[in-house]
Amino acid sequence: MGEPHSFETHPLLIVISGTPGAGKDSVVRRLKACAHPFHFVVTATDRLPRPGEVHGRDYFFYTTDEFAGLIENDELLEHAVVYGQHKGVPKQQVRDALDSGKDVVMRIDVQGAAAIRRLVPEAVLIFLTAPSEEELERRLRKRGGDSPDQIEKRLATAREEMACLPEFDYVVVNREGKLDQAVDDVLAIVRAEHRRTKPRVVRL
Amino acid sequence: MGEPHSFETHPLLIVISGTPGAGKDSVVRRLKACAHPFHFVVTATDRLPRPGEVHGRDYFFYTTDEFAGLIENDELLEHAVVYGQHKGVPKQQVRDALDSGKDVVMRIDVQGAAAIRRLVPEAVLIFLTAPSEEELERRLRKRGGDSPDQIEKRLATAREEMACLPEFDYVVVNREGKLDQAVDDVLAIVRAEHRRTKPRVVRL
Repeated sequence: MGEPHSFETHPLLIVISGTPGAGKDSVVRRLKACAHPFHFVVTATDRLPRPGEVHGRDYFFYTTDEFAGLIENDELLEHAVVYGQHKGVPKQQVRDALDSGKDVVMRIDVQGAAAIRRLVPEAVLIFLTAPSEEELERRLRKRGGDSPDQIEKRLATAREEMACLPEFDYVVVNREGKLDQAVDDVLAIVRAEHRRTKPRVVRL
Repeated sequence: MGEPHSFETHPLLIVISGTPGAGKDSVVRRLKACAHPFHFVVTATDRLPRPGEVHGRDYFFYTTDEFAGLIENDELLEHAVVYGQHKGVPKQQVRDALDSGKDVVMRIDVQGAAAIRRLVPEAVLIFLTAPSEEELERRLRKRGGDSPDQIEKRLATAREEMACLPEFDYVVVNREGKLDQAVDDVLAIVRAEHRRTKPRVVRL
């Protein structure tokens, strides 16, 4: 004992993912309000800010040239083109947060999470899901804005995404009216991961 | 979705171990008082009951012949001879508790835990420890009953036992006056383990 085992814990890279309608945003919003000093990843994009959006809070806004530079220098953890606009996570931001000892939380879609698994095997991947397909459908209809066709498409996507479950470490079921439980599940996972005898040390 | 993923969780076999003086008994006492429906393993022995000891609560008391029969039929999960008396954990007890859906908690010394690791690879092994050797020594002196020589021996054992740490899944530091935190760590580990996408299904 003495010093051979210092019991220090390493900061974690926590990826919150899951099918649309599972409640990723609600869970992340709650995590932001809790006492644990997380760093929440801010995505970089080359689209223009919308009214009210703040650089460094909502997004890191870059020009298309700057964004191309980040890609070229391998400075993005993950990036994708969404509706012709680039989105990605700057590695330096994650590095800085981990170096400061903070656990980093990234909210990302299932394809993005699968990419993170390959790039950062030490990441802690949490799959958030509705308790059933019926419940998911109900939520998608309730939040509105989607045509019946679009909802059908989203459900088909959700079905496909469930096939990625084995790539994740944990699955958290977000039951109707039980958001607290889902959030407590995530916090328990973070706490337990800090107690592993074989810590997941992230290197970027 | 629908039914391919039922999100059911499997009951766990949780082994609480660690060096003498780390506080295993205190942690288990707290777990007994908490709301989670654990089953706490009762050890079998062939020694005679002491005044006040109850069969099935403190120990399962067997004759030496009965105990030999358990060993012969491979019906003990782990057994040892302590001061010429046999001690062991009946498999049937653990099976019954798991079948009823309860998480099973076993409090056992480090050598015993290492044996469980080999016998039941799916067990969740938690190593409880004092924050430092100095603190451990202080606790051993404080609890009394040991000569300075015996304390020296216990510390030497503790040092050796720390070498077994990598065989465990988790390490929980029981800090002075922070028993609550150690217990909450254990409960978080249990909760997180129930959310694994690859559950540890125990078969005995």
